[in-house]
Amino acid sequence: MNARIWTAALIVIGDEILSGRTQDKNIAQIATWLNVQGIRLREVRVVADDMDGIGAAVNALRVAHDYVFTTGGIGPTHDDITVDAIAAALGRDVIVHPEARATLQDYYATRGGLTDARLRMARVPEGASLIPNRYSGAPGIRVENIFIMAGVPHITAGMLDALTGSLEGGAPVLSRQIGCWVAESEVADLLGKTENAHEGCQIGSYPFFREGRSGANFVIRSTEEPVLDACAAELTAALRAMGHEVIDGGI
Amino acid sequence: MNARIWTAALIVIGDEILSGRTQDKNIAQIATWLNVQGIRLREVRVVADDMDGIGAAVNALRVAHDYVFTTGGIGPTHDDITVDAIAAALGRDVIVHPEARATLQDYYATRGGLTDARLRMARVPEGASLIPNRYSGAPGIRVENIFIMAGVPHITAGMLDALTGSLEGGAPVLSRQIGCWVAESEVADLLGKTENAHEGCQIGSYPFFREGRSGANFVIRSTEEPVLDACAAELTAALRAMGHEVIDGGI
Repeated sequence: MNARIWTAALIVIGDEILSGRTQDKNIAQIATWLNVQGIRLREVRVVADDMDGIGAAVNALRVAHDYVFTTGGIGPTHDDITVDAIAAALGRDVIVHPEARATLQDYYATRGGLTDARLRMARVPEGASLIPNRYSGAPGIRVENIFIMAGVPHITAGMLDALTGSLEGGAPVLSRQIGCWVAESEVADLLGKTENAHEGCQIGSYPFFREGRSGANFVIRSTEEPVLDACAAELTAALRAMGHEVIDGGI
Repeated sequence: MNARIWTAALIVIGDEILSGRTQDKNIAQIATWLNVQGIRLREVRVVADDMDGIGAAVNALRVAHDYVFTTGGIGPTHDDITVDAIAAALGRDVIVHPEARATLQDYYATRGGLTDARLRMARVPEGASLIPNRYSGAPGIRVENIFIMAGVPHITAGMLDALTGSLEGGAPVLSRQIGCWVAESEVADLLGKTENAHEGCQIGSYPFFREGRSGANFVIRSTEEPVLDACAAELTAALRAMGHEVIDGGI
């Protein structure tokens, strides 16, 4: 019996990522958070600050996955077009959300007041609800199965925190890592065979070179703890039987 | 007169990125390198170690862009399926490349010999050429307009180095950054107007909060230095006229 698997896609919006100026941190952060919710991140697209590019990605991914997350492009400046692009992709109007307006009015009361530019951050696709932002005034936005988040990683972290436990998911993916001072090419067959022998397990191999030695970390993933334990134990025993040093938890 | 713009897409292949285990570094590295080659990175997709997912991304992007780069999945283990997936997407057979085989034979001569698993790293789509790898035996691969690179960032860096200057591109995008202790929402109108007044310029705004103060860096991009200079000078003057401190080069 296979349990339902819940999946998500992420759209990272921003010329600053595509130009190499900014090192993205939201992919890893959202992936890690989704795992805990029992939702698997299946695909990421990084697109430019461009109406058509954002719209095409949203429309391709929202029908293919249970959830779509976006990061970036919800600030007050001319290059912040995420809300407009997503509303257009969904065929919805853009409105000023009264609660977002009130939140921004409060936030800017002691910070120079709510200007037209700042009011842009209260604009949402019609029918959307808000995701609280504990760090600055501008909220995240939920519309249909799309979650529109900030680009600045710590603001996104706060929004994820606000969503924790509120999304339906399946069994979280559990993982265990073991490290071994061996070239992965020496144990490639063993990895494949061990994975095949434990249904529902995946083994990833992540080689490195340190202090002049070849090593690798092996990450075993499964939704079922007994299967994970058995797979990790068998791989550890087999590596040790070959004479390799194995470090539980990874190197 | 508009010059031809050369574009690229990147496909990051790997469950380790989608699970959040590994922080990707190849997007920023390849984006930065492409800028110098006069090629613009327009889209990135992160996909799982999955034949169909890789194939769909390759086929969507190779017709839409001048160049497609991939990272990851070219090692010796069972989850390294990039070559098979790309060959299938292109309708090509997979063969053992004689030169790659010879390189691996040399490399592993003092490292335990060329096993079947290691020989996997000599497999390429038929008709492909090799990209030198100065750090370990396994080469990168070029087939049609697709460049198949390693997942480990420093190995990818060496492969990019080997390709430097060999790809046709257009005018590199130049950029200038200025920093200002101002909330971006206060100057949103100014940014939009300044961008519109300088054809071919783009202004990106990257806000931050440090030491209890709001600030932003503004990145101006253009392929033409005089336009870039004029735009940066005008924005700097306007910000100073509003009474804000401006730091050339960014904060």
